Order: sequence, then structure tokens, then C-alpha cells
Amino acid sequence: MSRMPERVNICECWARDGIQGEDQFIPTEKKIAILNRMVDVGFKRIEATSFAHPKLVRQFSDSLEVLKGIKRPPEVTFIAIIPNDKGLDRLLEACHQGYGVQEITAILSASEDHLLANLERTFEEALPPLADLVKRARQAGIKVIGCIGTAFGCPLAGEVPLEKIIELTDWYLDKGATSIMLGDTTGEANPRQVREIFGRMKDRFPGVDFIAHFHDTRGMGLANTLAALQEGVVLHDSSFGGMGGQPATRRPKYHKGFAGNACTEDMVLMMEEMGIQTGLNIDEVIDTGIMAEELCGRSLLGHVTRSGPVRHRSPRPFSLQELRVNGEIAPALLFAEKVKESLSGQALAGYVIREALAKNWPVPESLRISTDGVSIRGELGGRDILVTRFKVLEIKKEKNEGILEVLSQKANGDVFMEGKTILTFSG
Amino acid sequence: MSRMPERVNICECWARDGIQGEDQFIPTEKKIAILNRMVDVGFKRIEATSFAHPKLVRQFSDSLEVLKGIKRPPEVTFIAIIPNDKGLDRLLEACHQGYGVQEITAILSASEDHLLANLERTFEEALPPLADLVKRARQAGIKVIGCIGTAFGCPLAGEVPLEKIIELTDWYLDKGATSIMLGDTTGEANPRQVREIFGRMKDRFPGVDFIAHFHDTRGMGLANTLAALQEGVVLHDSSFGGMGGQPATRRPKYHKGFAGNACTEDMVLMMEEMGIQTGLNIDEVIDTGIMAEELCGRSLLGHVTRSGPVRHRSPRPFSLQELRVNGEIAPALLFAEKVKESLSGQALAGYVIREALAKNWPVPESLRISTDGVSIRGELGGRDILVTRFKVLEIKKEKNEGILEVLSQKANGDVFMEGKTILTFSG
Repeated sequence: MSRMPERVNICECWARDGIQGEDQFIPTEKKIAILNRMVDVGFKRIEATSFAHPKLVRQFSDSLEVLKGIKRPPEVTFIAIIPNDKGLDRLLEACHQGYGVQEITAILSASEDHLLANLERTFEEALPPLADLVKRARQAGIKVIGCIGTAFGCPLAGEVPLEKIIELTDWYLDKGATSIMLGDTTGEANPRQVREIFGRMKDRFPGVDFIAHFHDTRGMGLANTLAALQEGVVLHDSSFGGMGGQPATRRPKYHKGFAGNACTEDMVLMMEEMGIQTGLNIDEVIDTGIMAEELCGRSLLGHVTRSGPVRHRSPRPFSLQELRVNGEIAPALLFAEKVKESLSGQALAGYVIREALAKNWPVPESLRISTDGVSIRGELGGRDILVTRFKVLEIKKEKNEGILEVLSQKANGDVFMEGKTILTFSG
Repeated sequence: MSRMPERVNICECWARDGIQGEDQFIPTEKKIAILNRMVDVGFKRIEATSFAHPKLVRQFSDSLEVLKGIKRPPEVTFIAIIPNDKGLDRLLEACHQGYGVQEITAILSASEDHLLANLERTFEEALPPLADLVKRARQAGIKVIGCIGTAFGCPLAGEVPLEKIIELTDWYLDKGATSIMLGDTTGEANPRQVREIFGRMKDRFPGVDFIAHFHDTRGMGLANTLAALQEGVVLHDSSFGGMGGQPATRRPKYHKGFAGNACTEDMVLMMEEMGIQTGLNIDEVIDTGIMAEELCGRSLLGHVTRSGPVRHRSPRPFSLQELRVNGEIAPALLFAEKVKESLSGQALAGYVIREALAKNWPVPESLRISTDGVSIRGELGGRDILVTRFKVLEIKKEKNEGILEVLSQKANGDVFMEGKTILTFSG
């Protein structure tokens, strides 16, 4: 696992790949609401929309309104798919008016058969206008992702030779693309192949940013993501609820089943559990996944949305020594005293317990809780299973925050969890 | 990936772990039907039932009838879970009457809290009778899987120290267990942890057969399976449709969501696509997955059941040279002639095409087929995409079989697929 990155950057694709196969039109304000939520949650790369012809893919007939409506903090890169010159014209006009994107995706397939099925073009027909499109975008200061679809196999043409992927990568880079996406368009990749292709591509193009874009069509989305991580891939695509698939046009269906992207909420959890930093809070990610389900009005395929995260592995574990320098675990009254002007001890204990339950502790249904100052005792079937105590480290009254040390011990004294936690008390 | 095995042995767990959480009782004859199907499909390890107390888990109140009803070719190992002495008494009686199992699973949890929640016992209470159970089973000639549940984390107790897993493994081996199962009972494992734990366990116990038993609760079933493969694990558990989870008793619910095992059909495809031999035919595995869905009367979570396999990667690729030693690809009439006594050329062409479509070739909806002897031409949007020709290698009339060479070429002459295929013509 030597190439495994410490940090990744996940591009959330729900608002484009995620919904492009949906027959129902998702109202513009709802698209904007979820995009804004993604921004709040902390995604730094967000695929916002597609400039496919509005008549071809009705879902994106509101692409300009969507871009107009979303909030745009400077640290977030918004991305749009631009299939052709007319799409770029519309985007550049939007950029001119201040609501463009910083990055576009240019589309090719490694398989000419898929290129034909998807864009109705041969390579010979597709490459010259695409070269022009990349050049114009770059001249306008827009970065370009060179997407190579069906890179791991094509449902129409079968295997795709690595030489073709290398050739198209060379072509894209020559034309000015700033990163290269290897797309498993119809979920045909397997982990061995992913390691081989990404491994060889990264060896061959050491300075290039590669994007791993997997579909979960055959259930291998996360396994393939793991394989890409093992080859050092930092940029990953995903979609809430594992949504996505072939665009809803009238063209022949070449992609069926659970055709969506690798699932955002499950991917974030896997990476965080592995100690790879996504910069995202899993609880907020899960909430957004639930929001996506509500928007679509049906159950999606996110697992973590249903199970909840793994509570007990703190993303940043503290060593015992590091914790103990501040002295013994103190009774909760200390904490209560420190904020007594703003909050009663009892109410504070309530906050502490609620936050602790929400953030640190899996709760069996039969759990009973008793408070003793600010400590928690859990019982299951008449037996004590866990006792948690808190020690105040710092109170930031102006921010309504307290930083606590947490020590959870099982009834036999074994340490279950220890770490720092930030509690907010807004009431 | 140096430890990756060339062959694996998948234990199908549907009839035990798969259905133990189902509220509806699955009729005995249906359980028998699917178990017999698993045997036909080629599973060599099959978890057939549980000897949990019939009142505690009603689903297994028919465990003896199930064992009585199934076919038992000698190459298949049947497995049952035996939670206690009374279960073993019942099983030994069944063995005595000729319908027992060759292997049992003895249950422990790495976490005492889970042991309490699951079996209502502490280690102190659980170990002595379990030692006796293992001993009695071994004396009766039955192999024993030493299951260590919650090995990757417990929803009640949190992290589980590796030392505990080592201690229990030592204990099991000392008592006579013949293999060790590390169970991710509630889907808390992540691939980094899986590699670490299996890696360290295999280093520590080099001669021991370890079984990887993952739940897909957080969508990581296949990613964790990949990690276990990377550490050389050969024995894997799975369940059709990703079914499974906490037994349906009245005890508190500690496992929610898509709580099932790693999905059999998706796991088989992943392994086969990676070139790891499962000894199973993916089409037959998918058919069995569909049968499991029909039995349960609802959609399950198998992906491959919906997408179909990746058609274009032949499990055993042939080199061009290897194929060409038999001479040129011949027109189909040769084949038709060879079997003209039993079948007309036209009818045979039909079989060939049907079989070729079923086994080797993904079919876009707009495909048109024209036969020219026994060749197939596919068109999409007015453009030729693929031509497939067959050459007869051998006809086994008594078996109604023909072995053909297949060569598929794209219109531009690129080879798309080549290999051998067996055609049966039963009509």
C-alpha cells in the first residue's frame, strides 16, 4: 500500500452523472439546494451540471439557472460537462456574466463503438472539434478534465487496449487538458485491472493528475476505488446514493442495473475509516445522502445512510500520554461551573450526553443512561457496558463551545475510547 | 498483490446467515431447492443451516428436515452453526442417521459485550462448554470452524484488540478447531484494517486456514474481500443477494441497514474478472441469485443479477497463435455438415447464435443479426460493430456438444474476443 495517499479530493457528481439517467425532472431549486448543501458540507470539487443539448437530456435544460442559483465560495471548484461547441458557447456566456465554472469535462471514449453510441461520432469526427473546444476553454482560463470513457472496457466493443488510453492521454495533454479522467463508464472494471492501468499510467505520466471515475454497476465501485488508492490516485468521483448511469436520451440502452457512480457516503466512510483524510464530516455527508433520497423520492443504494458510520474509530486517535498531561479526568461539575452564567449544569449535562451519543458512541436500543454530573453510564441487559467521563480543557464562550477530553471505559476498566471532542451549546 | 491466491473456495451462506434475519419463514422445500441448486452450480462449501434453538430463531426450526432433504455429493462440504451442546446433540443424532454435516461452526465473539448480546454469556461462562463442544465434534469426526465474531470492531464495545483475536485463535486451535473464521459481524471493517489483521494473523499462524466473513453493512464487503485476497486468504464467505444480518430473535437490535453478507454473485464476478478461479460459472451463479430473489419475493442487493456479467473478458484467454494452429476460421457450413444427421444447418446456426449471445457477447438493444452460415454481424445505428465467426474443433454427438473456436472482430479488423466455447444442441 505504499502509494496510498494521506489525503484525497472527492468530486461529488450527483448533480450531473447522478441525475442524468433520471426520467423525472428534478426541480431547479432542489438541485440548487443540494449543491449548496454540498458546499456547506465541505466538498471542494462539485460537478454542477451538464451542457448537453437541452432537448437531448431534458434534466439539464436548467443548467444556466442552476449555475446562477448556487453559492460560490472561492475554495470550491465547480465543474460542468461540455459535450460540444454550442455547450461551450453557452458556458462562456455564463462565465462572462459571472456564473460559470472553473473547470469543464471534455468527453471521449477509449472505445470508438461507445463514442458512436454516446456522441454519434468516430474518432476522426470527434477529435478536431474537441481540440478546438479544449483550446477555447483554456484561452478563457478554464481548466479542462480530459475524460476517457470506457477506459476499463466497453459493453459494445469489449476490451480496450492500454495503448489507446495512452494515445488519448497524450492527445489531451497536448491540447491543453489539465487532468485526465479514466472513466469506467459502464462498471466493467475489476481491481486487478484498475491497479494495472492506473499503475502503468501513473508511471508513464508521473506529473499528471488522474481522476478515478467508477460506476458501481457490478458492485465493485469501492473495491475499484481501493485499488486506485493503492496506486496513489488522489482525485475520486462519486455520487450520493450511488446514483448515475447512462444519460436518459432515446439512444439504445447499453447500461442496465444499478448503473450509478460509486456511492459518495460509502466512499467517504471507507476512506475516513482507513485514515485517509477526505476533509468531510461523515455525519454531514450522510445527512446530504438522506436529502438526495428525499429529493428523488425513493430509496437509493447508500449503505452508510442506513447503518450509520462506524462510531468507535475516532478519525484522529490520541495516545493515552497525550491526554493525560492535562491531569486526571475531572468530574463534570467543573465544566458546568465554567459555563454557569450561560447554562445550568443540568442542561449542560444534557448537551454533553446528546453530543457524545451523536459523535462517539454507538447506542444499542436497550441502552439506559444515568447522569452523574457529566458522566454517562450505559447498561445493556442489566450489565454495565460502558462509562464515559469528560474533562474540560477549554471553554470558548463567545463561540458557545467547549473542548472536552473524553474517556470511555468498559465496566472491567478497559479503555474503550479516548480523545478530544468539541461541544457546542447553542440553547 | 504478491499473496493473491490463484484459486479460492467460496462458502455460500445464504441458507444460514442469509436468512437468519428474515421475519418470514422460508418453506423447507424451497430451502432444499436452493441448496440443491448450489450443489449443481458447483459450490464446494455450503452453509446449510443453524442448530440455534428453534424457538429462538424460528427460521431454523426445520434444520433437520433441510439436512434430510438435500443431495450430498461427496465433494461438497456442508456446514452448520452449532451454538450449544443441545444443538450438537441434535446434529450428532442426524449424523448417526446419515444426514449430518462434515463441518460445524463454533461461535465466539472477540468482544465480550457482543458475546453477551448474542449468546448471553461472558467469556468465563462461554469458553468451558465450547471447549467441550469442539472436543465432542472432533471425536465424532466433524471439522470445526472456530468463528471469532466482531473481529473487526463491535457496535457495543468498539475497537477490539488484536491480542484478543490471537488469544481466541490460540484457544480454538488448542481445543481442536480446524480453521479460524474472522467475522466482521456488523460490517465495521475497512480494507486497511483487514490487511493489517489478516496479514498479522497469517504471519503469526502460518499453517492455519483463515476464513474471511464480511458483512456489506457499510458497502465495503467487496473492498474488504479484495483486501483479504491481497493477504492471501483463500476461504471466503458470501450470501446470495447480499442477504444476512443479525438473527431474528427478540434481543436488542444492534445491526441495522443493508446488514447482509458480502454478495455471492458480485463476489464471484469480481474474483473471476480478476483471474482468480472460483470454480463457478457466473451465469449459473446469477441464475441462482435470481432464484434467491424469487424465493424471498423481493429485490435483493446483487448488482450482477441486474447488470449481467462483463461479457468480453474470457476467463481463460487464448493467444492468437494458440488459436491459429488449427488453421483458418472456417465458414459455418463445416459445423452444420458435421452434425447434419442430427440437426439442420439452419437450426444449428440458431443455436450457435443464441449460445454466442448468451455467453460471449453483450447485446445492444438495436442489434440486428444476419446469418451467413454461422457467423453473426451486429449493427448499431447503421454501422457495423462486430463480426463473429466460428470454427468447429470437435463434435461430441453422444453429449450433444460441439466445441467451437470463436473469433469476433470489429468492423475495422481489430480482434474483440477469441476463445473456445462449448455449444450444446439439445433440441
